[in-house]
Amino acid sequence: MKRTFNVLIFLLLACAVFAQGKAKYVFYFIGDGMGVNQVNGTEMYLAEKNGKIGTESLLFTQFPVAGVATTFSSTNSVTDSSAAGTALSTGVKTYNGAIGLDKDKKQLVTVAERAKRSGKRVGVATTVSIDHATPAAFYAHQASRKMYYEIATDLPKAGFDFYAGSGFLSPDKTYDKKEAPSIYPLFEQAGYSLVKGYDAFKAEYPRAKKLILVQKDNSIPDAVPYAIDSKQGDLTLAEITDAAISFLTKEKNKGFFVMLEGGKIDWACHNNDAATAFNEVIDFDNAIKVAYEFYKKHPKETLIVITADHETGGIGLGTGSMDLNLKALQYQKISQEYLSVAINKLRKEKNHKVSWEEVKALLADKMGLWKELPVSWEQEKKLRDEYENSFVKNVQAFEKTEYAISEPLAARAKEVVNEIAHVAWASGNHSAGYVPVFAIGAGAELFNGKMDNIEIPKRIAKAGGYK
Amino acid sequence: MKRTFNVLIFLLLACAVFAQGKAKYVFYFIGDGMGVNQVNGTEMYLAEKNGKIGTESLLFTQFPVAGVATTFSSTNSVTDSSAAGTALSTGVKTYNGAIGLDKDKKQLVTVAERAKRSGKRVGVATTVSIDHATPAAFYAHQASRKMYYEIATDLPKAGFDFYAGSGFLSPDKTYDKKEAPSIYPLFEQAGYSLVKGYDAFKAEYPRAKKLILVQKDNSIPDAVPYAIDSKQGDLTLAEITDAAISFLTKEKNKGFFVMLEGGKIDWACHNNDAATAFNEVIDFDNAIKVAYEFYKKHPKETLIVITADHETGGIGLGTGSMDLNLKALQYQKISQEYLSVAINKLRKEKNHKVSWEEVKALLADKMGLWKELPVSWEQEKKLRDEYENSFVKNVQAFEKTEYAISEPLAARAKEVVNEIAHVAWASGNHSAGYVPVFAIGAGAELFNGKMDNIEIPKRIAKAGGYK
Repeated sequence: MKRTFNVLIFLLLACAVFAQGKAKYVFYFIGDGMGVNQVNGTEMYLAEKNGKIGTESLLFTQFPVAGVATTFSSTNSVTDSSAAGTALSTGVKTYNGAIGLDKDKKQLVTVAERAKRSGKRVGVATTVSIDHATPAAFYAHQASRKMYYEIATDLPKAGFDFYAGSGFLSPDKTYDKKEAPSIYPLFEQAGYSLVKGYDAFKAEYPRAKKLILVQKDNSIPDAVPYAIDSKQGDLTLAEITDAAISFLTKEKNKGFFVMLEGGKIDWACHNNDAATAFNEVIDFDNAIKVAYEFYKKHPKETLIVITADHETGGIGLGTGSMDLNLKALQYQKISQEYLSVAINKLRKEKNHKVSWEEVKALLADKMGLWKELPVSWEQEKKLRDEYENSFVKNVQAFEKTEYAISEPLAARAKEVVNEIAHVAWASGNHSAGYVPVFAIGAGAELFNGKMDNIEIPKRIAKAGGYK
Repeated sequence: MKRTFNVLIFLLLACAVFAQGKAKYVFYFIGDGMGVNQVNGTEMYLAEKNGKIGTESLLFTQFPVAGVATTFSSTNSVTDSSAAGTALSTGVKTYNGAIGLDKDKKQLVTVAERAKRSGKRVGVATTVSIDHATPAAFYAHQASRKMYYEIATDLPKAGFDFYAGSGFLSPDKTYDKKEAPSIYPLFEQAGYSLVKGYDAFKAEYPRAKKLILVQKDNSIPDAVPYAIDSKQGDLTLAEITDAAISFLTKEKNKGFFVMLEGGKIDWACHNNDAATAFNEVIDFDNAIKVAYEFYKKHPKETLIVITADHETGGIGLGTGSMDLNLKALQYQKISQEYLSVAINKLRKEKNHKVSWEEVKALLADKMGLWKELPVSWEQEKKLRDEYENSFVKNVQAFEKTEYAISEPLAARAKEVVNEIAHVAWASGNHSAGYVPVFAIGAGAELFNGKMDNIEIPKRIAKAGGYK
């Protein structure tokens, strides 16, 4: 009996070794700012919205492997997205701000480059700009994440097959503010078709050799809209995932590697905007569903790995009482960013003469305050005081967070909604908490156990059999 | 090739099935209040203390299986320790406050009872009182966690072999405050030897049939001292673990099941006392090391599972800047609870006439303030203002947390230390975040993937082959 067991143990280990190099198709999903509580919070939000206590599982949290990873950078206990992106792309810790370089600014090799080298078709995609820290860490090598132009010029050098995102932040101006040749002709010369919007992608991708998918003209290049704000025709991560699969499998191939970032979970958390963050996690899950459909067709050759670069906001689920009230978040119709825009629009339309009743009506309509959500006197006072400053005395202390400048009244409304929902935030910045790691498919077992984030690309390369 | 792979897959599954019922020896460790950030924070504290950025791994986080579990109760998104303890002992969700009963107050069967039924020797142990929610959930069945006397009378009824903890909270008074027969003769009649302290245990256990290990006489029955406050001769969880192993294996046996709780991680987090919490997690790890030594001798027959009942405090690692300063916590020599006692002692010794210099000297000595830790003017002002209230005006607003009433100045000192360390707390109560699950040994693979807490006892019963 014992002997049989030993034989089985041996075969078990043999299986694990055997699984290496079997992941012909690799999806690497990174939820920017998606700590464990962003995930758990979303699942509890979904349950409470449906009148239940507990969780309603997202797809990706049901994958057979679920673990945690640490995220610190070589210089900071709390990482930024570029050092974390570099760790997740190269398997090497570096300084906060670095893109694809080690702490001595030596160029590193990314898992995407290794996939390319190994004959795979390669894609890098995000819901924010293609030159932003996380995607950049997979194809670029620059001393600072803020060198957007220089990062973009690295894109054709990497020569990957598919890129997607909202656009580019600095197409013709260098980091030191000098005019420079537009990146777009550079992309074209390198053989890339620049395609704007998902419909255009569908029409044009069969003829394209290499492709860059961005938003339609007249979109803000910074990012695709938050899922909570998204309108028909806006680009989504699910569409981007679908486009990546279509493009990377359209010809006979040796398989693919694609990194897909849900970039705005982080942004919503920088704003401490819980409803928007949870909707971003749902949107991220929707993209993973597209990958999962592909996995179901090629279960033995497909690996899906999901992780995050760091946690953002230090979100806490509970503020002292033994319950949550996440269902309150369902009445929020737009992001705090759009609420700020709406308040600002009202301000301008009414030439700064906005009545308290008009403000209340807006907050009722967009956030559910006073309408579905009872507002305590303390909470009303907070809002009213800000209204008095903002509209009566006309003193506006605009609140600046990482990716937004907010009308003070929008910031107060968000605070009141967090209080009602029993959601706490430690700060408007990143935290050092564990991030989740989920995996399914060929080589998924390599992701068991707690790991440091630098292990993840190494294990992906092992699963994919990359040189 | 494909055929070989299929065969291997079959064998792999066979292995998993084969592993069931193989866990002759089961250690079930529960860190009360130990969310993922309590664990990650401890590992980052250990690294920073040694002058490094990053983590220094505890033993249990290196176990091959590392996942997460959800914790909500049947009535609350945020569970208490009794509903979570019941979920972790019986695999059934119940209302906050319930001990071993379902939401209709029907008696449930615990995994410990199933182990007993299956011929295993059984132990239940903790660092807090034996009648406290978590241990009680494994042997008692009462409508309220506060029914300490009634819970204690369930102990001989369960008839387990080994119990350990600090003591009993209400040995001769019922829940409705009536005098009642002391539980101690009841224990004796049921064949238990009551043993006081680890040395007494070592001398007496060979002769005992069944055993209850508590602290030495003249100890506070509520809990063993915090690890940070512990003195030579104080009972520790590592000693309790060692005692459990010695006692449960002393005769020919069919194996054992033992639940061991690190009960005061929760208490420290209710107090938002980071240094004390991290030292409790280290203490918990030290107990797991004792179990691991046993595992190394019986690797094919031993299962160690580690989890938590819930997170406490909503601890956030980072407060806005991109770094932590956890190394600051190394200068804290005593828990916030003991600091409060020290301040109170000073107050009494000096007949309320304590100088600011004396207060500063105490805080320098016990917390490192002004000594190793620079104190900003804002922080000094906060402490000084509290001193003025507390000692000059003699107005003391004692701060009450779940398990302590604190001198206000001790509470302010703790807040300043948290600020210096860049540690945030959402509240003084539980939160709903994921808790970690770690496992090693026979059947450990059953703990892969995210799970609800009710899965854990079911999987342990499967691994142990319990009826």
